[in-house]
Amino acid sequence: MRVGIGYDVHKLVEGRELFIGGVKIEHEKGLLGHSDADVLIHAIMDSILGALALRDIGYHFPDNDNDYKDIDSKVLLKRVYEIMIKEGYEISNIDTVVACERPKLSPHIDEMRRVIAEILKTDISNISIKATTTEKLGFVGREEGISSQAICLLKRK
Amino acid sequence: MRVGIGYDVHKLVEGRELFIGGVKIEHEKGLLGHSDADVLIHAIMDSILGALALRDIGYHFPDNDNDYKDIDSKVLLKRVYEIMIKEGYEISNIDTVVACERPKLSPHIDEMRRVIAEILKTDISNISIKATTTEKLGFVGREEGISSQAICLLKRK
Amino acid sequence: MRVGIGYDVHKLVEGRELFIGGVKIEHEKGLLGHSDADVLIHAIMDSILGALALRDIGYHFPDNDNDYKDIDSKVLLKRVYEIMIKEGYEISNIDTVVACERPKLSPHIDEMRRVIAEILKTDISNISIKATTTEKLGFVGREEGISSQAICLLKRK
Ligand SMILES: [Zn+2]
Ligand SMILES: [Zn+2]
Ligand SMILES: [Zn+2]
Repeated sequence: MRVGIGYDVHKLVEGRELFIGGVKIEHEKGLLGHSDADVLIHAIMDSILGALALRDIGYHFPDNDNDYKDIDSKVLLKRVYEIMIKEGYEISNIDTVVACERPKLSPHIDEMRRVIAEILKTDISNISIKATTTEKLGFVGREEGISSQAICLLKRK
Repeated sequence: MRVGIGYDVHKLVEGRELFIGGVKIEHEKGLLGHSDADVLIHAIMDSILGALALRDIGYHFPDNDNDYKDIDSKVLLKRVYEIMIKEGYEISNIDTVVACERPKLSPHIDEMRRVIAEILKTDISNISIKATTTEKLGFVGREEGISSQAICLLKRK
Repeated sequence: MRVGIGYDVHKLVEGRELFIGGVKIEHEKGLLGHSDADVLIHAIMDSILGALALRDIGYHFPDNDNDYKDIDSKVLLKRVYEIMIKEGYEISNIDTVVACERPKLSPHIDEMRRVIAEILKTDISNISIKATTTEKLGFVGREEGISSQAICLLKRK
């Protein structure tokens, strides 16, 4: 078995749509990034690559590469899944935290879990997503950005 | 086996008592929250719920519910323990970090470990608590708040 | 098996050399600390001590102890390795994230992995180092400091 940890941050800006966990969420701002800036899927991908000791998403999907401009992060997660399978591993379980002052993520959690579980071909009971505010403290609390952490446990197939 | 991760933040304010890891600590400020705002126990609970993919403490103990007003977080940890047992899991080990500029937590670590191990019915050698400052940087460094991270490894009973 | 998590922060200041992951990196600033302030090695040491429930690096290597003034953190990592061996554990795998706005760490990752794997007497494929910016947000984004997180999975020898 192998463990991995991922951490990602994106800036909240006007004029972008907000994607978290593969789900589009109504909000007056969105996350800025080269891809769709899905902070939760990015953290999950980094945790899986980290568990496999295969560098990080910046290495696999460079943000100066036009192939990844505005790309749906679910497509990238599918590629990370394929890397994991090729290495001979599968998901044991994934747990995550999104630190976000607004909007409320709670109503979207189960849809995010379903989307991610489907891509990673694992049961929804192996995908956990939790949300927390930072009580108006720091850049998350000032709604300047959203951060996410993910941890995964992989097992040999 | 399943892994979980928890992250929690509370604001430091005057006129509140400071509870961390189930222990009351002398300090001129305390943590603000609907419950006793025990940032370490909250992170631990979230790590356990996350490992079980059973949502988060905001879902189980909503902060608009008067039942949880000023509640001792040790009572909530006991409930999370019962959920874990019902799901058929037990603690393999828990490791945590509290990011806190002041006061010094070091003298209280072993008491916190003892309190938490007792509630989770595990040996004290399975509960680790570490403390760090953030070198006066960020909201923790400015003593605006305290954050905590927890990771747990659960095993099937 | 046991899991551990480490988190460390150091301030970036002029007039210090920058050491991350045991590697000296050219930059106009360095990290401030009692030792060489190697934020990544410190997070790794704390994750190992945490997995073993043997307190933290502040406890083992107090920063008011002149023995540790400007000490090379690789020496301290060697000691933590010896503690781990004495307890009867070995590294299963370690995954880490360094949050750093500048300089770019990517060209140094594989050397860091090699250095750390050698000290911990494990294969380089068991050591993962990832780097991320925080998109100019927070103290990391303002280049006031660098933070690092580490997670480890240990197994009984
Ligand atoms: Zn990202
Ligand atoms: Zn809380
Ligand atoms: Zn340090």
